Amino acid sequence: MTTQQLVEQIVKKKSFLCIGLDVDLAKIPATFLQEEDPIFSFNKAIIDATHDITVAYKPNIAFYEAYGLKGWTSLKKTIDYLNANYPEVYTIADAKRGDIGNTATMYAKAFFEDMAFDSVTVAPYMGKDSVEPFLEFENKHTILLALTSNKGAFDYQTQKVGDKELYQVVLETSKSYKNSENLMYVVGATKAEYFKEIRKIVPDSFLLVPGVGAQGGSLKDVCEFGFNSQVGLLINSSRGIIYASNGTDFAERAREEALVLQKEMEEIIKNKL
Amino acid sequence: MTTQQLVEQIVKKKSFLCIGLDVDLAKIPATFLQEEDPIFSFNKAIIDATHDITVAYKPNIAFYEAYGLKGWTSLKKTIDYLNANYPEVYTIADAKRGDIGNTATMYAKAFFEDMAFDSVTVAPYMGKDSVEPFLEFENKHTILLALTSNKGAFDYQTQKVGDKELYQVVLETSKSYKNSENLMYVVGATKAEYFKEIRKIVPDSFLLVPGVGAQGGSLKDVCEFGFNSQVGLLINSSRGIIYASNGTDFAERAREEALVLQKEMEEIIKNKL
Repeated sequence: MTTQQLVEQIVKKKSFLCIGLDVDLAKIPATFLQEEDPIFSFNKAIIDATHDITVAYKPNIAFYEAYGLKGWTSLKKTIDYLNANYPEVYTIADAKRGDIGNTATMYAKAFFEDMAFDSVTVAPYMGKDSVEPFLEFENKHTILLALTSNKGAFDYQTQKVGDKELYQVVLETSKSYKNSENLMYVVGATKAEYFKEIRKIVPDSFLLVPGVGAQGGSLKDVCEFGFNSQVGLLINSSRGIIYASNGTDFAERAREEALVLQKEMEEIIKNKL
Repeated sequence: MTTQQLVEQIVKKKSFLCIGLDVDLAKIPATFLQEEDPIFSFNKAIIDATHDITVAYKPNIAFYEAYGLKGWTSLKKTIDYLNANYPEVYTIADAKRGDIGNTATMYAKAFFEDMAFDSVTVAPYMGKDSVEPFLEFENKHTILLALTSNKGAFDYQTQKVGDKELYQVVLETSKSYKNSENLMYVVGATKAEYFKEIRKIVPDSFLLVPGVGAQGGSLKDVCEFGFNSQVGLLINSSRGIIYASNGTDFAERAREEALVLQKEMEEIIKNKL
């Protein structure tokens, strides 16, 4: 998907919501456990209930890997279902991969070709030759970790490197990568005060923003400095939506929670765009 | 596996060689392509031909992921084969994962429980709460990226943070993590001159060293400063061994290439231990 297509979808749906599909078998309604593929069935129900008010879905790959081959089967069925039924929806493989040249190409193939995701999250620690192989794929985005939503972000990401912080160096350096127009960045909603600095470095890029909801980040605060002329934000919520209820009304309640965020977004778009 | 068991195996086999199982279907003997599971069959042949002179195998997970479900099946069969037939051999899932708390736990379960690897490589960028969940697993090692073998390592890892370089901060900070005795570190052989500094920070830890062979690193140079009283090194070679030939003699030739390294290691152990 092109960035332009993503923007068109955002404008049409009046939403820049991304729903995280981090399915934990211990948290989904118990009735699913009798099904052949509980994870896929749960995802399908959530997707069917929310696809018209969200612009993206983001499976967290770890939650599938943890169940081995069964988990990978569930993931493949989920992405295939999305691409077949809701091709307008943007898809993000939250894999946080990062490895050298030929290995990075293999990871890119796994998520862009075998799985046909629109984008994948990538870690920056190994530098240019670990990121550029992802950027070669046309109409695919590489979402680089910049400033993450967790406490550990302060271990290295905000360390001073000269007169900048490491995440700023990551943002700046990445702009010189080949095909850097295919980059987006992960910036945690729990660090809203950083968005002003970040927008100075990457004014036009899309930012994938986890941490709204369960982790405590505020949508309003993020939009204050993060919103740009093309919206430029994908706000992710996972647990707050998909686990709104573990009763038979789970899908209905998930939609309600997603609607709360979408309505807030509609208001923000009306005021800011 | 405990560190002590690994050391015992090194002393017994007079080897600290790790063979990287980075299987590319384009590079293995064409006869394998007719088999039901070419990757596993190739791995099995390499393992059977080299298990007595190597102490570890390191599948590079990207090379399996790239083939989707089939690739994950090959990986599972490979680790199961190793654990069933050569349980004394140390196994490394070269996955370079890195994500926050509950997600890190899922990745740890994927590799330590579902796959039953002895260790997994992990990226440090997201900090403490992305690493500690891996360290909770008993008799399992977490191998943290410190200074990698690629050019991109100079993008961030060697950037000055105060009076130190980032990789040094990573090494030092990680020592304060809970269960840090379960840590090992990735240090590229292409950066042999750095081992002296690294050994000042982590004198006792095992270092996983890629980059000998195809990437140009020297075993002798690495051992000069990297070797410690328990050897403390696992030297990885992938392409130089497994693709020594793509003819019918591929396994034999792989063993010969592995033997060259093992003989060098035997000499070094004799002189240094």
